[in-house]
Amino acid sequence: MTTAQIGAVPSFIAGQWQTPAAEGGTEVLDANTGELLATVTKEPLDVAGAVAYGRETGQRELAKLSLHERALKLKELALYLNERRKDLYEVSFKTGATKIDSMVDIDGGIGVLFTFSSKGRRELPNSNVILDGPTEPLSKDGSFIGTHIYTAMAGVVVQVNAFNFPVWGMLEKFAPAFIAGVPTIVKPATPTGYLTEAAVRMMLDSGILPEGSLQLLSGSARDIMDHLDYRDMFAFTGSASTASKLKAHRNVIDGGVRFAAETDSLNAAILGPDAVEGTPEFDAFVKVVVNEMTSKAGQKCTAIRRNIVPAAQVDAVIAAIGKRIDERVVIGDPRVEGVTMGALASLEQLADVRGAVEDMIAAGGELAYGRLDAPAVRVAPETDAVAESGAFMSPVVLRWNDARNPIVHSREAFGPVSSVIGYGSVEEAVELAAMGAGSLVATVCTNDAEAMRALSLGIAAHHGRVHILNRETARSTTGHGSPVPHLVHGGPGRAGGGEELGGIRSVKHHMQRTAVQGSPNMITALSGVWHTGAQQSLAGSPKFGGKPDNVHPFRKSLAELKIGDGFASDLREVSLEKITEFANETGDTFYAHTDQAAAEANPFFPGIVAHGYLLVSWAAGLFVEPAPGPVLANYGLESLRFITPVAAGDSIRVTLTAKKITPRVTDEYGEVAWDAILHNQNDEIVATYDVLTLVEKENLTYANFEG
Amino acid sequence: MTTAQIGAVPSFIAGQWQTPAAEGGTEVLDANTGELLATVTKEPLDVAGAVAYGRETGQRELAKLSLHERALKLKELALYLNERRKDLYEVSFKTGATKIDSMVDIDGGIGVLFTFSSKGRRELPNSNVILDGPTEPLSKDGSFIGTHIYTAMAGVVVQVNAFNFPVWGMLEKFAPAFIAGVPTIVKPATPTGYLTEAAVRMMLDSGILPEGSLQLLSGSARDIMDHLDYRDMFAFTGSASTASKLKAHRNVIDGGVRFAAETDSLNAAILGPDAVEGTPEFDAFVKVVVNEMTSKAGQKCTAIRRNIVPAAQVDAVIAAIGKRIDERVVIGDPRVEGVTMGALASLEQLADVRGAVEDMIAAGGELAYGRLDAPAVRVAPETDAVAESGAFMSPVVLRWNDARNPIVHSREAFGPVSSVIGYGSVEEAVELAAMGAGSLVATVCTNDAEAMRALSLGIAAHHGRVHILNRETARSTTGHGSPVPHLVHGGPGRAGGGEELGGIRSVKHHMQRTAVQGSPNMITALSGVWHTGAQQSLAGSPKFGGKPDNVHPFRKSLAELKIGDGFASDLREVSLEKITEFANETGDTFYAHTDQAAAEANPFFPGIVAHGYLLVSWAAGLFVEPAPGPVLANYGLESLRFITPVAAGDSIRVTLTAKKITPRVTDEYGEVAWDAILHNQNDEIVATYDVLTLVEKENLTYANFEG
Repeated sequence: MTTAQIGAVPSFIAGQWQTPAAEGGTEVLDANTGELLATVTKEPLDVAGAVAYGRETGQRELAKLSLHERALKLKELALYLNERRKDLYEVSFKTGATKIDSMVDIDGGIGVLFTFSSKGRRELPNSNVILDGPTEPLSKDGSFIGTHIYTAMAGVVVQVNAFNFPVWGMLEKFAPAFIAGVPTIVKPATPTGYLTEAAVRMMLDSGILPEGSLQLLSGSARDIMDHLDYRDMFAFTGSASTASKLKAHRNVIDGGVRFAAETDSLNAAILGPDAVEGTPEFDAFVKVVVNEMTSKAGQKCTAIRRNIVPAAQVDAVIAAIGKRIDERVVIGDPRVEGVTMGALASLEQLADVRGAVEDMIAAGGELAYGRLDAPAVRVAPETDAVAESGAFMSPVVLRWNDARNPIVHSREAFGPVSSVIGYGSVEEAVELAAMGAGSLVATVCTNDAEAMRALSLGIAAHHGRVHILNRETARSTTGHGSPVPHLVHGGPGRAGGGEELGGIRSVKHHMQRTAVQGSPNMITALSGVWHTGAQQSLAGSPKFGGKPDNVHPFRKSLAELKIGDGFASDLREVSLEKITEFANETGDTFYAHTDQAAAEANPFFPGIVAHGYLLVSWAAGLFVEPAPGPVLANYGLESLRFITPVAAGDSIRVTLTAKKITPRVTDEYGEVAWDAILHNQNDEIVATYDVLTLVEKENLTYANFEG
Repeated sequence: MTTAQIGAVPSFIAGQWQTPAAEGGTEVLDANTGELLATVTKEPLDVAGAVAYGRETGQRELAKLSLHERALKLKELALYLNERRKDLYEVSFKTGATKIDSMVDIDGGIGVLFTFSSKGRRELPNSNVILDGPTEPLSKDGSFIGTHIYTAMAGVVVQVNAFNFPVWGMLEKFAPAFIAGVPTIVKPATPTGYLTEAAVRMMLDSGILPEGSLQLLSGSARDIMDHLDYRDMFAFTGSASTASKLKAHRNVIDGGVRFAAETDSLNAAILGPDAVEGTPEFDAFVKVVVNEMTSKAGQKCTAIRRNIVPAAQVDAVIAAIGKRIDERVVIGDPRVEGVTMGALASLEQLADVRGAVEDMIAAGGELAYGRLDAPAVRVAPETDAVAESGAFMSPVVLRWNDARNPIVHSREAFGPVSSVIGYGSVEEAVELAAMGAGSLVATVCTNDAEAMRALSLGIAAHHGRVHILNRETARSTTGHGSPVPHLVHGGPGRAGGGEELGGIRSVKHHMQRTAVQGSPNMITALSGVWHTGAQQSLAGSPKFGGKPDNVHPFRKSLAELKIGDGFASDLREVSLEKITEFANETGDTFYAHTDQAAAEANPFFPGIVAHGYLLVSWAAGLFVEPAPGPVLANYGLESLRFITPVAAGDSIRVTLTAKKITPRVTDEYGEVAWDAILHNQNDEIVATYDVLTLVEKENLTYANFEG
């Protein structure tokens, strides 16, 4: 086949698919067979157009949706892709991925969409402003307060992905940017960009995404950074050397482009001093090491490159790894039954990895397992030839006499290659791990809690993730090498210094945190969340601010309810008799409620005091509107603090104010958080908390109810 | 005086004061009088020694203290400095600062210590591991979970400060680093470094600080970055051009040095369309602008450089600013009675500022107020000469016909200089503000909530702080230009992209966030906080895990109590009678507790259900140990969620487990958070929450109590 017969991988820029000429592009081959698949153009792409389109159309269209609405779209997208994932598997095999590798990439990527969709709707407000942290009083009279908000960055995010996870790598960067409201421009790696293109095309074909929210650059985009400024983000996954060049660009240094890098690192697995041969931890360790060496043929930025084991266990570990590989690993064309490890992504990649291993051997490493020439491979009978043209490599284990040999801690063979080094003390194990100069992840494998603590806290500042493995988790672990969407992915130093995933954290990485200061009324108007001191519209007792004409807020559906609507109760006296009765009824006969002498001796109480639980129970009695209506349930309470004790003879009253309204995008109701404040007869604050309720969007269930 | 007679400003490196030869150093002059004060050496300092000492001795000594212990030391230090602050005022006058300027710098810096000390002890655990965010279940059986921890960075933080706030600038960077446990190396700016030296000397003389936690480099330290790596942080305040050079250093680009910059920016103040002459907002605006122009003689990175006002208000604003300056501002030697604005920091600074104004006039600006030659100054009769040798300058207001003239938005005159430009629409005001390409702060001055929202949300992504000013806050505002320790300071783009202050956020900036995964037992051992699924040691009902020999955890002081100690109750039945009784007693007669038909119609309830408040009240009755003991009070509740409704005839039981123990460093007691979980008779989860109690460190109050 000639390049004229195959095509170039298209780009999607400014709302248009663009397919360059196939001739003259970089040729992309099937990793298993060497067959020509496509070309990737070397001609410059219209990066400026993509950036401008994202900043204008993309920003505008995304801003029309709330955080929840965008999160929901990710779920729709996940369902759409999920139905079509088998089409992606077919393409994925060509990259050298086994079925399991493809599932990690494709199903894993779809899983990230589901997780972000769910977290976005559960953990974020249904607006476009996220409050961050507590409100800070900045003046004594309460008229000037401060807090922090997150709003979407004003530009685009350019996402440069690595070749090894063409789908997952794209989706895990896209999802948080999309929820944040920042348009994505994807730039995949050339060797597997055709798979990314297939996935992006599916996403665009779905019709789910707002215009301008996703663009694709298939090809050379060396000048991308020239077009970005402080409004934009550049999220890079790939080699440290490329990251270095990009980070040194004047638009990062002077222009303030937000730069995040996730580069492969020399990740370690540490076997604890207790985890000798024969323990469940030793077995779990060997299993995880072999898995990391062979899944994706070791082409993972999280793969274990350095096994740091007790000096006396080095031989046993190497033997056990070798044995497990012999028993379990079948190299070959992943489309053939029984194959568990496919080819590397390309022949160039194979040459690179072999070269790195040769360098390491020259520097003192000993080839303790595996071989550097072509391994035996299992291929389909009719394609025997692929054994030569495929990028196959045997797993390789290196043994080192000098655990501090610098090359062990600095040179990465990005394939099925791992080193084993010995340590004397736990402190030495920590030092050896830190010699990686910053890593994405380390496994700490031990059943000794003290050793675990010393190892994990010792290495934590050098790592983005620490995976603690012992007999309790040997079966249930999600694995050393698998970033999960809930936890951050990225590490300091050599690992690039960036942070991805981590749930809502990564949404916020696409936003600007801004301190805001002003009056409670202004901060309320800005954030959409009621702040103490802001205007209220109260029903209830005229003595405490209630207006006779105001309707009880529990009678209002979300369509009617406004932030600041509330209810003020009258005072109710708390007698000793009632306290005693409550103690007897609930069984809470704590001395502070029952024994005057003991209560007086307590440093916080004047004598017998009412139960905190009595106070909040009575408060509910004081604020409730008992008849059926749009308020469906009280599903919880937040941040309850008892401030002033209530003694027998004191009275309490409650003021309830609608604080935060979160209509659900998928239900007929939403959450309303009510600010509750209890005062005593002297207007001292007795308690403060938030009451959490579910309220209908429209009067529905009980609109015509006749009980 | 010759340099031989005065001295060189000393450094404090590796535990030793080092005073270089005075000769050959940069001469530092009194800003008001031109008198020679000291020299700053140009010889290289032992930066490598300082870094090594910090990483070793400093890290080790700081790690011996907990977060609370370090926070408490900041309070001790604040009290120590507070008693001696007048000595610092005397030195401060020489920098050109007025008494009020000095108070902002010195008292303000001490205030930062107090705030951080208090926040550190209130908002952080009393250990060296901070948990971040929720626990994430990662396996269906609960045996594998994940969460995030913060631990101190493993290196040092080098803090390069600007000349304008020699004390505050040093303390606001030092305080969060110190709490985090990261040793500080201070590098002050040459013109005012002698004041920083005086403050650092006081801090070291206090004997409060652990060895190696604070070092001082007075002098040239161009090679600092050569000695740092990914374990270290570089926190810079100063010019954008210097920041740019430092950020381009290979140890930042490749080495992973954590780099934070706070550079001066072209901050804006926007007058709302409603805030016409005669409104309180107009007056408040003029007041804040004049204050920002003249305090510290306008040498503030937060000063207002661009006044963006309705086109029709330009003349009125300029006139009102001029009038207020005429009435209020007296330029002169700050040691002389009545002077409200001192000199610029140096004659070089004066020449720079004048040059910038001249450039701006040449580019189209009109000198609408002020003068560029020497202003009239008030000096002490005996020092008449200083009028010539002091760096005095008149406030200057520039008017612009073209609001989009690029020089308005890019050239900063770092002195008492401000421009006024007009806008047509709110959208245009947003665009003009954004032309600053990233700023530290903007004031939005309006009493119109809608205009405020459009302006504030429009500019938020371009700013680190938005200060909303209206009649409600005109008197109580802490000011446009004053960073407060509670809120972040720093902004995107031109402002440097860094983040300082912001309370505990800035402590975390000196730590590494690490995802940790493992079994509940391991995550508990690592974090010191009990996680669901980890081992418990329960007293109470043998049917539900209680051991007869175990003591009720409420009988244990902090000296005896361990994470995981707990209590399991028996079941108690909830009858319809009890629900009705509770409804009548509390007054909470919500239909779900009183009306079977209405309750059945509710989408969440099977029929009449128990009050949530009944459940938590009964739970307290089930878990309480009523007799006096070390548990002094229940001061609150967190994260209460009702999961499964409890109908009449159901039973509930509670399990209480010590989750988090926080002994206070200043009291005889501490906080214990208890994990509470309610189950029904079918072992379904009814409710989950945390009970917050105060518990004595040792059995004290009731040890020998005989009621």
